Amino acid sequence: MPAFQTVRGMRDLIGEEAHAFTYIISKARETAELFGYREAITPMVEPFELLSAKSGEEIRQRMFIFKDLGDRNVALRPEFTSSIARLATTALKNEPKPQRLFSAGSVYRYDEPQRGRYREFWQSNFELMGSSKPEADAEIVLLTNGLMKSLGVQRYAFKIGHIGMIRGILSHDGVDEKTQNAVLQHMDKKEYDAALKLVETEKCRGMLEGLLEVKGADWRDIVEQIKSYVASYDKAKDAAENLSEALNLITESSDLSLTVEPAFARGLEYYTGMIFEVYVPELDTALGGGGRYDRLIEVFGGEPTPAVGVAHGLDRIALAMQTQKTALSTRREKRAVVIPVKQELKAEALKISQMLREAGVSVEFEVMGRKMAKALEDADRRKVDFAVIVGEKELKEGAVVIREMAKHEQTTIEIGRLAEKIRGKDE
Amino acid sequence: MPAFQTVRGMRDLIGEEAHAFTYIISKARETAELFGYREAITPMVEPFELLSAKSGEEIRQRMFIFKDLGDRNVALRPEFTSSIARLATTALKNEPKPQRLFSAGSVYRYDEPQRGRYREFWQSNFELMGSSKPEADAEIVLLTNGLMKSLGVQRYAFKIGHIGMIRGILSHDGVDEKTQNAVLQHMDKKEYDAALKLVETEKCRGMLEGLLEVKGADWRDIVEQIKSYVASYDKAKDAAENLSEALNLITESSDLSLTVEPAFARGLEYYTGMIFEVYVPELDTALGGGGRYDRLIEVFGGEPTPAVGVAHGLDRIALAMQTQKTALSTRREKRAVVIPVKQELKAEALKISQMLREAGVSVEFEVMGRKMAKALEDADRRKVDFAVIVGEKELKEGAVVIREMAKHEQTTIEIGRLAEKIRGKDE
Repeated sequence: MPAFQTVRGMRDLIGEEAHAFTYIISKARETAELFGYREAITPMVEPFELLSAKSGEEIRQRMFIFKDLGDRNVALRPEFTSSIARLATTALKNEPKPQRLFSAGSVYRYDEPQRGRYREFWQSNFELMGSSKPEADAEIVLLTNGLMKSLGVQRYAFKIGHIGMIRGILSHDGVDEKTQNAVLQHMDKKEYDAALKLVETEKCRGMLEGLLEVKGADWRDIVEQIKSYVASYDKAKDAAENLSEALNLITESSDLSLTVEPAFARGLEYYTGMIFEVYVPELDTALGGGGRYDRLIEVFGGEPTPAVGVAHGLDRIALAMQTQKTALSTRREKRAVVIPVKQELKAEALKISQMLREAGVSVEFEVMGRKMAKALEDADRRKVDFAVIVGEKELKEGAVVIREMAKHEQTTIEIGRLAEKIRGKDE
Repeated sequence: MPAFQTVRGMRDLIGEEAHAFTYIISKARETAELFGYREAITPMVEPFELLSAKSGEEIRQRMFIFKDLGDRNVALRPEFTSSIARLATTALKNEPKPQRLFSAGSVYRYDEPQRGRYREFWQSNFELMGSSKPEADAEIVLLTNGLMKSLGVQRYAFKIGHIGMIRGILSHDGVDEKTQNAVLQHMDKKEYDAALKLVETEKCRGMLEGLLEVKGADWRDIVEQIKSYVASYDKAKDAAENLSEALNLITESSDLSLTVEPAFARGLEYYTGMIFEVYVPELDTALGGGGRYDRLIEVFGGEPTPAVGVAHGLDRIALAMQTQKTALSTRREKRAVVIPVKQELKAEALKISQMLREAGVSVEFEVMGRKMAKALEDADRRKVDFAVIVGEKELKEGAVVIREMAKHEQTTIEIGRLAEKIRGKDE
């Protein structure tokens, strides 16, 4: 019989790899608590209609869609925002604003598998609903900064833009929304020539070209240039002003590293304001990204609700940390094995194991019934810190033998002092 | 437009409800660490052939099965054991025994939804592979006890049996395995008459009937009675002996409450030894259950590997804790809101928010731009502990106003002493 494999595009995470994920999730949850976000655990399976309401055609075609046994059209969630929008328009409909919601878990997209890209991948997701103010935009960037910092990610930098600057120029010159979306999608892929080709009037094309060429010493310089460049385009100017306010709040209250790109666009059609992504130099895909989408909740049948959010790609964060050899800053617990010298002492040895666990020590009990030499050899191979050897002679005196595996040293110790001895090494 | 709903049988967990789940999972993970179990995160979607290899027809018919875009037959996992068996026969094939693996996450079964039963539900799962010894059986029961204890579940008790006692009687009298499975399935549902009807010879039927009637003062008494009752049935006697050894280890090293039921059977066909479930009086479904399945890894194409495992139903544990009003024993963090007196002070107020978060305080920044009275009213409604009011006059002296919401008291405080003041209330 051939061995079973995972489904193509999916993978197992075992031991250290799993720990990296649960560690990142715990830090995301901590960030949520620090910023006052409530957690929402939503189903992995949602109505297809819900998940496809906002997604572009591209994501729709990459969803895992099926019928359940009740013949309902359902799909595995490709992201969290639709589920959160569902909550906003149902269970949380009458709750006061602002609403801050956090989620973390796996999402599903049928992409071509490649390094760091799987069909099942992990996100943490933050949504702040109800505020149209730049301090809300700032908060979403600041909490992303907080997560990166708490994880010890190095040399990360934010790329920030505002979808309203480009839209403002295009709509001022009468470009319809569908064409605007197409222009933005090309710009997201850095296909600037293709984007410009879609703009019919020469004036508007020239205006857009000029915007893309704005460069400057720092973000203040860039934003000031844009403001005077688009001075006669009201909406574009408002957008630049709005971006400037958010960036001001961000840089006044943190030391995060950011650049402003006038040509920056994100693929999804629903962004209406500030947008951002966070990068490390080692990877060419973003570790996370988000922005403002003030009309999204309406798409799901809710009241008009300004909102801003971010999704962090936990797989990419894990990859960045691995590439940067970032240590997970948890205290590594000391591990012990407990081995009875003979079968008759199993119950006593198990009792000692339980006592150690109650004192917070990680204990593997010898369940193979192996001879001492074999059991110690195995403990050595698995880099356990201590072996506790339970023998008859020592037990009579309320003691056991403890062996420090790395040093090959062993000594007799009172059972009452065992936990302290094992844990003491950390302190 | 009608509001979107969750898919039938699935539900959202928000805020406190989500916290109960993540709390239980964190305690299960802690238990795994204490007992030396490595975590395995396996895909939610697995090949249908894998998931159906061991499941009985009943579970097979209740799976969420579909084809992915590559026309592969896949399904949402209905439990964890198949995925862990896949690991044991592939990635972990050549690793030394014993192997201890822990998983936690959601699983999917198309059951009729009812109180506490959903089509998406949550399990923590522990598998100990490679040992046929009773200390391995004991360990799985002890770690379940450890989890219940650490969660503060009250009045829980274990029901323990051994599938080998019934099988030993049936096979001794020539009942084929298929009929044995049918007998056990009836017994699992407490349909004893239907079970007995399947046994052809009167002798065997009488023998089985007698076994079911064994009662005693405590587990030792019951096991001793069974041992002498089945004295001439070698395999049944070995089973009773084996159960006795495991129970001895369990009771010698812990104070857990248990009963032995000779007629206890679990639905799944693959159990070969000790089986158990844990209950609380408030619920009539088990909070968890498991047992020994020494031939399962072979079903997945692996080497013969003795194994024992347990799955805990996190939804039911959460329900039990809720019914018993068990407090989640995490220290409740103090929450603060930070409100600038006027718009020009937003950046300063955000800076103070960031400082508080760095000191571990959960801070909600006022992102609605509301007037002070409105913002305080909202803070009051949401039971925030403190409001930090950032005003111009105080700022000039490096201070802010802090308002203790419950007491309606406010005072001016140096910014440097703010974090201490807010957190100090806990200590």
